[in-house]
Amino acid sequence: MRLQLATWQEVDAYLKECNGIIIPIGSTEQHGPMGLIGTDALCPEVIADHVSAEAGILVGPTISIGMAQHHLGFSGSVTLRPTTLIAMIRDYVLSLSRNGFERFYFLNGHGGNIATLNAAFDEIYAERSMQRGSNQPGLRCRHKDWFAFPAARRISKECFGDREGSHATPSEISITQYAYPDAIKSMPEDRAEKPVRHFTDADDYRALYPDGRIGADSFLASPEVGERLVKECAKEIIEDFNGFVAQP
Amino acid sequence: MRLQLATWQEVDAYLKECNGIIIPIGSTEQHGPMGLIGTDALCPEVIADHVSAEAGILVGPTISIGMAQHHLGFSGSVTLRPTTLIAMIRDYVLSLSRNGFERFYFLNGHGGNIATLNAAFDEIYAERSMQRGSNQPGLRCRHKDWFAFPAARRISKECFGDREGSHATPSEISITQYAYPDAIKSMPEDRAEKPVRHFTDADDYRALYPDGRIGADSFLASPEVGERLVKECAKEIIEDFNGFVAQP
Amino acid sequence: MRLQLATWQEVDAYLKECNGIIIPIGSTEQHGPMGLIGTDALCPEVIADHVSAEAGILVGPTISIGMAQHHLGFSGSVTLRPTTLIAMIRDYVLSLSRNGFERFYFLNGHGGNIATLNAAFDEIYAERSMQRGSNQPGLRCRHKDWFAFPAARRISKECFGDREGSHATPSEISITQYAYPDAIKSMPEDRAEKPVRHFTDADDYRALYPDGRIGADSFLASPEVGERLVKECAKEIIEDFNGFVAQP
Amino acid sequence: MRLQLATWQEVDAYLKECNGIIIPIGSTEQHGPMGLIGTDALCPEVIADHVSAEAGILVGPTISIGMAQHHLGFSGSVTLRPTTLIAMIRDYVLSLSRNGFERFYFLNGHGGNIATLNAAFDEIYAERSMQRGSNQPGLRCRHKDWFAFPAARRISKECFGDREGSHATPSEISITQYAYPDAIKSMPEDRAEKPVRHFTDADDYRALYPDGRIGADSFLASPEVGERLVKECAKEIIEDFNGFVAQP
Amino acid sequence: MRLQLATWQEVDAYLKECNGIIIPIGSTEQHGPMGLIGTDALCPEVIADHVSAEAGILVGPTISIGMAQHHLGFSGSVTLRPTTLIAMIRDYVLSLSRNGFERFYFLNGHGGNIATLNAAFDEIYAERSMQRGSNQPGLRCRHKDWFAFPAARRISKECFGDREGSHATPSEISITQYAYPDAIKSMPEDRAEKPVRHFTDADDYRALYPDGRIGADSFLASPEVGERLVKECAKEIIEDFNGFVAQP
Amino acid sequence: MRLQLATWQEVDAYLKECNGIIIPIGSTEQHGPMGLIGTDALCPEVIADHVSAEAGILVGPTISIGMAQHHLGFSGSVTLRPTTLIAMIRDYVLSLSRNGFERFYFLNGHGGNIATLNAAFDEIYAERSMQRGSNQPGLRCRHKDWFAFPAARRISKECFGDREGSHATPSEISITQYAYPDAIKSMPEDRAEKPVRHFTDADDYRALYPDGRIGADSFLASPEVGERLVKECAKEIIEDFNGFVAQP
Ligand code: NI
Ligand code: NI
Ligand code: NI
Ligand code: NI
Ligand code: NI
Ligand code: NI
Repeated sequence: MRLQLATWQEVDAYLKECNGIIIPIGSTEQHGPMGLIGTDALCPEVIADHVSAEAGILVGPTISIGMAQHHLGFSGSVTLRPTTLIAMIRDYVLSLSRNGFERFYFLNGHGGNIATLNAAFDEIYAERSMQRGSNQPGLRCRHKDWFAFPAARRISKECFGDREGSHATPSEISITQYAYPDAIKSMPEDRAEKPVRHFTDADDYRALYPDGRIGADSFLASPEVGERLVKECAKEIIEDFNGFVAQP
Repeated sequence: MRLQLATWQEVDAYLKECNGIIIPIGSTEQHGPMGLIGTDALCPEVIADHVSAEAGILVGPTISIGMAQHHLGFSGSVTLRPTTLIAMIRDYVLSLSRNGFERFYFLNGHGGNIATLNAAFDEIYAERSMQRGSNQPGLRCRHKDWFAFPAARRISKECFGDREGSHATPSEISITQYAYPDAIKSMPEDRAEKPVRHFTDADDYRALYPDGRIGADSFLASPEVGERLVKECAKEIIEDFNGFVAQP
Repeated sequence: MRLQLATWQEVDAYLKECNGIIIPIGSTEQHGPMGLIGTDALCPEVIADHVSAEAGILVGPTISIGMAQHHLGFSGSVTLRPTTLIAMIRDYVLSLSRNGFERFYFLNGHGGNIATLNAAFDEIYAERSMQRGSNQPGLRCRHKDWFAFPAARRISKECFGDREGSHATPSEISITQYAYPDAIKSMPEDRAEKPVRHFTDADDYRALYPDGRIGADSFLASPEVGERLVKECAKEIIEDFNGFVAQP
Repeated sequence: MRLQLATWQEVDAYLKECNGIIIPIGSTEQHGPMGLIGTDALCPEVIADHVSAEAGILVGPTISIGMAQHHLGFSGSVTLRPTTLIAMIRDYVLSLSRNGFERFYFLNGHGGNIATLNAAFDEIYAERSMQRGSNQPGLRCRHKDWFAFPAARRISKECFGDREGSHATPSEISITQYAYPDAIKSMPEDRAEKPVRHFTDADDYRALYPDGRIGADSFLASPEVGERLVKECAKEIIEDFNGFVAQP
Repeated sequence: MRLQLATWQEVDAYLKECNGIIIPIGSTEQHGPMGLIGTDALCPEVIADHVSAEAGILVGPTISIGMAQHHLGFSGSVTLRPTTLIAMIRDYVLSLSRNGFERFYFLNGHGGNIATLNAAFDEIYAERSMQRGSNQPGLRCRHKDWFAFPAARRISKECFGDREGSHATPSEISITQYAYPDAIKSMPEDRAEKPVRHFTDADDYRALYPDGRIGADSFLASPEVGERLVKECAKEIIEDFNGFVAQP
Repeated sequence: MRLQLATWQEVDAYLKECNGIIIPIGSTEQHGPMGLIGTDALCPEVIADHVSAEAGILVGPTISIGMAQHHLGFSGSVTLRPTTLIAMIRDYVLSLSRNGFERFYFLNGHGGNIATLNAAFDEIYAERSMQRGSNQPGLRCRHKDWFAFPAARRISKECFGDREGSHATPSEISITQYAYPDAIKSMPEDRAEKPVRHFTDADDYRALYPDGRIGADSFLASPEVGERLVKECAKEIIEDFNGFVAQP
């Protein structure tokens, strides 16, 4: 069930069974010559929808814009500053906590979000920790990257080996090809250059990686691999989510 | 073209023709016994997609969570504080401005966003106005509510008259029924009570409007009216957007 | 009674009868060739003083600087960023709420404040709405523009018709002429140009409206009209305020 | 000339002669059984108006609400948090700096503002200092307390000796009696208790000083002393301001 | 006992005897041709360590970076903006308050911190004062400059007379020479120029004081004077701290 | 060379050779029954001092207080909220960048800082990335944990095997024992319990880990192992820093 397609009474009923929710979080940023700008948001959204269909877990609206400052040298990329994203995640979590949710499972599709996402969790916890004897309801956050689940690593290795790279990867593009077949793009089979060093700001990134990819042969992507990724990752996420919610 | 389904090179090409973008903005909040929690975000998103299909205008990712503090008494409602939303809109606009966009057209689906959205525009402009001789590129924001276009008012009046109300309206629910036929819900044909006074915070809202609706007979909604609303509003929005982008 | 001319014991006594207060809010910004820079703050202050004299309602210190980023291209104009003004209004309201006030009636004299003022109300409410079972005292804010009361519209229409315009209007200048007869200025009877489109930042505003007025023939102002405006608006404000305070 | 009673062209003309401005800053807080809540704002405002009348110096709108957290235990007291006041002072100064002002002379009437006011100056300077080779126009802030000028100390000592105290002093009340003769209040001639230790928050303050005064025999105030204070302080302020503006 | 060299059980035991802590606060900024960049942080740290050794008072980690915007024109200088430092002090105090500390004694070594430090105290108090009936534990902050204790003034006057100056003073350099004998530097015996006027931002400061000193003949410093300063100030600080903690 | 023991002219001279600096960052938080509260700050500080002595690299003042919200249930623990720490790191870096530094090497001693530290880097970069054609000087940040260098892992594994744990580890305590022999504490040889799940806020942490340790047999620590860790890690850090600074 997607939260946005539910009524508040349906959420009330859900809360009687489960106080956890999955929140997809991604980014809006260039993904090289054939990758979609929304790739990092679409992937966890698609997977979360599959999870929801399989296991009846509630899925909140996707955080489509993340921390992508390094991509701003390419048209169509959008970033939130880390402090903005922290404020946003805090408000999102505290709103649902007010309604009775206690377990927040962020399914992330963008490496650039990881630091800020975890800083946001600490920002939320710190408000509570700094008060003696706060009586606020319990609240736990977990962050998981879809691409770090064993299934994702296994399929990526099997299908793309060392040509997976780290940005505009054939794996993530495969998922969007599976989910958005009308939006499949192509590019020449130019091998991506290997990453030389870590980027800093947007000008630096573009100078290092002129077509936007980092070591990724995006053109190896296929909808079939995308389908496998979605389905196999979803299984592992369901199990992980259930363990999270079942924690005493 | 949805930004999330484009590549950065496609955006570069688009920018040669047009420096404007439509950004749907809504909310995640209760919409009474049969209205979807995502109604306010889904409506402008659906209309913007139609606009895009008809006129080739680029549509950015939807801001799905808005200013909905008054709905937090109902499960599943989520708010951003106004200052959080201002920061988010600022970052969204300045990111795209950095890439070459100059006209930002926010298509809004939620009355509760209006004040904050316009405050956000002023926050963006104020940064520039407070500097003497800033050399930043031009940047103009416009906010329009889909439900305030003449077409929306006309259809609403014709179909629902004074039973439209102001929250969980049959008009907005019609649009979600048209776009999400699998998520159509029903409710008893209870006439909504008339609004008595303006609400303040979440506890106050729930005390005033116990089932979440404000004066709206949601059950009058139909997918057919939704289709009309989407298509007729889209026409007017295309014209309005084109006028905005054509401003000297 | 003006709060600034009262003692704390007098306020204690007032609170036994009434928990409401009027807070004038305006702006410090150019008002064309003959309008005073303080016009938007002086008008609600003068009207509120009249209200207070007639009905014994407490009037807090005027917020003299508002959101006026678009006027910064003219000397003497001052703005607060929206986020600054939100913080200020929040502190003002929460301070008095701590002391026992519960109804905050902002009498506004500046269109540019409206969005931020209402965003500030939501910022205040959101702090409460985001907590489950907050035990804070009740608190309601209302915003009214003096120039939108029926009396103001009626007198403006009668005296100035379509030459009222929307910035540096003869109505608001009439009020300052009535209240500050020693500060009456004059200008040539140049008809103001009609507004072409909505302004954005300060450079844009000045380019569109080189003498600062928007469609307003300021020179039609007179102290006599000012007196009528003050007295007739005050009557309607007293009634509106009393209704607000009497709300259950 | 008060900024609020000027037109932008008059300010333009003033700027050709002088780029300095006086900004009165005070507070809205209890001043004991007979002192006005606005005392700290009214005093510098009254003195600044006298300065302006004598020497033609421009006076900006008074910052009427200051840092008064310790007075919130008494009805009618209002505070800004220090960070709010810093933001407000920053915006005030940078707005006028954008228009051509370079010397900002804050005439303060409230001891509780001093720390925050000077922190605000550093906040403004820090923005510039943190940039290499910023090309922003020059900008200097000065803070002076009216009650610390030699004239104020001399008259206070002569008239009230050690009964002046430090809050709700007969000196400051004398000024408001001179300026607002219709608002003169009285109290029993109860000698104020001597201060024991520095207060912290509002509850602490009220426990230490139950009627609000700190060591001040407010009832010694008289309009005649107020007149002397205003006129003698004004002379010294004019000289000090002129020196400030004349700095190379 | 330094907090950083204690265990949490030792702190628990300490809290049974005393709920006060000394927090050294300084700055990282140029101190002329022979003064150490850390002078303002090292001095209160060294004195606090002596205090701790003599009297068993707990000493928290030094705030080494303060408000030093005016020194940024010299290499190695670092500043926090006032609002950053306020946030930091707030978090520091509230963390320890959560654990049971109630008296916070800031031993300061830098004039530039004074305003911000006191604004931070008010920021902390304001959070409490703005709530009616907050039940938070008591909390009091005190700020003392080591250089303003009678011992410091007496020794400085005796040893350096009017050549002490106000930045890179022989007194503060003497203390660092005593504590860090391996880091003693020298300079030509150039008399410092007298201060002409108060500085504003970093460019202004460097233009006024090209070698960084303000009226201070740093070369008069000696480790022997440093030792006297540390030991005599420590005595007075112990007494002052004990009085602070003993306050009812 | 420690920055705090240098003069600004010495820093100027250093900058002619090298534009990089090491900044130790740690935390002030409980470390179990025998670990020092300052452990996480002292370790990188001690190692950095060794690095500096060996290789002449400049070391800035340690950030002694980090993100430690989860430890606030234990006396003496102090946290900065993530947003406070981000502001602080930003100001630290931008101050030195203004003076000519371009490579910022944060040597970290606390796992809880990692997310916030990297979010701070992105906050700094984002300010630049969001401006088109910013002309600010180059600036690169790197974060390294001393305990993640191969030498640290190798020695830990060799000396403590699976009894190292993850908080209050014998490795980190060994370093403080080596550096602060007078502050060596002892505890009963109670085997630490294995971690069960990730903690959230302070109450949760204390409930899960009642004596503060996470899986770490702190009592295995020895000064000899500490010395090895310092010296071997320092070698690897020097090499890593030199590579960082040498990047084109
Ligand atoms: Ni990606
Ligand atoms: Ni709606
Ligand atoms: Ni006006
Ligand atoms: Ni006063
Ligand atoms: Ni110093
Ligand atoms: Ni540790």
